[in-house]
Amino acid sequence: MGFRFIVAALALLLGAGLGPARAQELVQKQVFEAGAYRTRNGGTIANVRIGYQTMGTLNEARDNAVLITHFFSGNSHAFGRLAAGGPVGYWDAIIGPGRAIDTNRYFVVSSDTLTNLNVPDVNTVTTGPSSINPDTGRPYGLTFPVVSMRDFIEVQKRLLDHLGVRRLALVAGASMGALQVMEWAAAYPEMIDRVMPVIAHDVDPWNLAWLDVWEAPIRMDPNWRQGDYYGQGRQPPLAGLAEALRIVTLQSRDRGWARGLGMRAAEGNDPARNMMDRFAIEKWLDDAATARARTSDANAFLYLVRANQLFFNEYETPEAAFARSQARWLVVPSPGDRVFPIEGVREMVDTLRRVGRPVAVAEVGGPLGHLNGVAGMAPLAERIRVFLAE
Amino acid sequence: MGFRFIVAALALLLGAGLGPARAQELVQKQVFEAGAYRTRNGGTIANVRIGYQTMGTLNEARDNAVLITHFFSGNSHAFGRLAAGGPVGYWDAIIGPGRAIDTNRYFVVSSDTLTNLNVPDVNTVTTGPSSINPDTGRPYGLTFPVVSMRDFIEVQKRLLDHLGVRRLALVAGASMGALQVMEWAAAYPEMIDRVMPVIAHDVDPWNLAWLDVWEAPIRMDPNWRQGDYYGQGRQPPLAGLAEALRIVTLQSRDRGWARGLGMRAAEGNDPARNMMDRFAIEKWLDDAATARARTSDANAFLYLVRANQLFFNEYETPEAAFARSQARWLVVPSPGDRVFPIEGVREMVDTLRRVGRPVAVAEVGGPLGHLNGVAGMAPLAERIRVFLAE
Repeated sequence: MGFRFIVAALALLLGAGLGPARAQELVQKQVFEAGAYRTRNGGTIANVRIGYQTMGTLNEARDNAVLITHFFSGNSHAFGRLAAGGPVGYWDAIIGPGRAIDTNRYFVVSSDTLTNLNVPDVNTVTTGPSSINPDTGRPYGLTFPVVSMRDFIEVQKRLLDHLGVRRLALVAGASMGALQVMEWAAAYPEMIDRVMPVIAHDVDPWNLAWLDVWEAPIRMDPNWRQGDYYGQGRQPPLAGLAEALRIVTLQSRDRGWARGLGMRAAEGNDPARNMMDRFAIEKWLDDAATARARTSDANAFLYLVRANQLFFNEYETPEAAFARSQARWLVVPSPGDRVFPIEGVREMVDTLRRVGRPVAVAEVGGPLGHLNGVAGMAPLAERIRVFLAE
Repeated sequence: MGFRFIVAALALLLGAGLGPARAQELVQKQVFEAGAYRTRNGGTIANVRIGYQTMGTLNEARDNAVLITHFFSGNSHAFGRLAAGGPVGYWDAIIGPGRAIDTNRYFVVSSDTLTNLNVPDVNTVTTGPSSINPDTGRPYGLTFPVVSMRDFIEVQKRLLDHLGVRRLALVAGASMGALQVMEWAAAYPEMIDRVMPVIAHDVDPWNLAWLDVWEAPIRMDPNWRQGDYYGQGRQPPLAGLAEALRIVTLQSRDRGWARGLGMRAAEGNDPARNMMDRFAIEKWLDDAATARARTSDANAFLYLVRANQLFFNEYETPEAAFARSQARWLVVPSPGDRVFPIEGVREMVDTLRRVGRPVAVAEVGGPLGHLNGVAGMAPLAERIRVFLAE
């Protein structure tokens, strides 16, 4: 009790000292009612709602906005705390008052995508296969229209219009967030000054096939029932979803991370003698994925996969899409990335240069492989500050 | 008919010209009855039988033998043709009369492992979970004892003893074959002159976890029934096995290979509009894996995974195992390898040097990633020749 009191008192003192900065770090999850939406391919969604959060203030010229786009399993919580004492957003190290993406200067917006994975999470607001189809009063399931990465961008564009944003000083995101950055740069080149795609290159056929490997366990789960698992008396395909998340989790990490768990057996297990026994790292992945499955929706996973596979699907070639961009690029690869190998990022940088785009590259290090671009961005703060000043 | 006749006549002429060389290239699949085997962990297998093939002649000193160890989904067919007009072995470009591993000089042996995957294939002879347990008259299923990579080596050692081999001029293999090479170097250091592990480093925790991802679809398939799927009226878990093989196939290839299939839809499919529709590369993987599943056994897949996970399980550390080796090493990594990333191979080479082993490195290139080490070894022929002359 005594120790806790001292910690609390210190926190109070520090909080008082930082005053306004601390208050600014509390963010509020908001809901944008985007109305009826016709997908790029002609599908219709009666009511689109997505969640978002902002920090900072839009200036009179309406040109100091920054858009942050989230990764495959993420949501809008990129910065700040949604509640006092709650966790900070995944890029909080580089976004906030006085930080690299300085909310004293920029109006930073981050939104949930369409068909966001985290349906059961109270801090996620999305529209997707688990949403109610007003025509039937039941969840869409697989009758929800296929959406592309470009559809994500169109819904975000409506949100920015609604917020009064005219110009984006920066669009930045990690992994699937970086794919949205690239789609933004091609779709609305005239309104974007800078882009920062982190830990991704344009989706290639090998990525497309991996996305299918990720989702396969969901389709194999008998509880999936062709996506029709919502409602009373039915079980969602949690085993398949957990296995899908296990693959994503492992591929998003790297050898250095795995060494921490080692080659040892799980407690009480003897895999050298019993075929059903487990190793510690298998158990860790089982537990992490099972927990994640409970706050995720299996159909949303399938729709997200498809949106990623439909990356740049409105352009003849990635080169044609990149050539449309008018922004300055800061490309951030991770050398140990097993989802988007760094060779692919280098090829993308070559393509960008070939079509005359101004590009800088800054690597993000660490033992986490792909995930370094989500959890390890702090060392790049100064580089990002310089990029924003250029 | 006329054209065929000319081809046949030419073949006859060429065959006559090459004479003995051609005849030597026909290999015969043989069976080694290894008898009762007690696993390193105390399990018992009543009768071990494995298939093997040889080319060349053992000399009087019995020291001109070469052992070739196969990859995860392979068998002993590394060189030669099992029938006139049939396909050549996977490393035929570097093994044969006058080739890098010259069968005019070396006695080359290649054997099927325990728990080989290709159970329904007529050219594979193995003992594993699908074998009949003489105590029950029924297939072992999961009652077959867990076997380790070291058990593979012990059975091969019996085969070499049976053939009269005293000394190995070379032990070479790709992928899981390279893991056997490393186990051989540590288990019988005094009998080996040279080792050539291709496209692998010692199994690390990240590999161990991937192996579990590979096998997970088998365990998810309701037809698997805890391994008890043999016999009348039962269906083997072909869907799960095919999905497992799909993951292996994709991870064993690389981005350059995938580009050939592109981002296009499968014929008659429209994945931009229909959630159940497929892309061409997905269809290619589906078809390849489904075909492979028909000549594979799901339980054997699980036992192979476990044997790989138990790599070097009798040594405190990989370093301790490598320190036992007395051989010269030629390590062959592939830069685009997504199963055993080249950084890991470089770390292994550092470890080998730290413990004082003589090591050379030769990279194998090509668009196939990991598979370059199986299908693309021809350019390394001269390097291997030099290594064998050293």
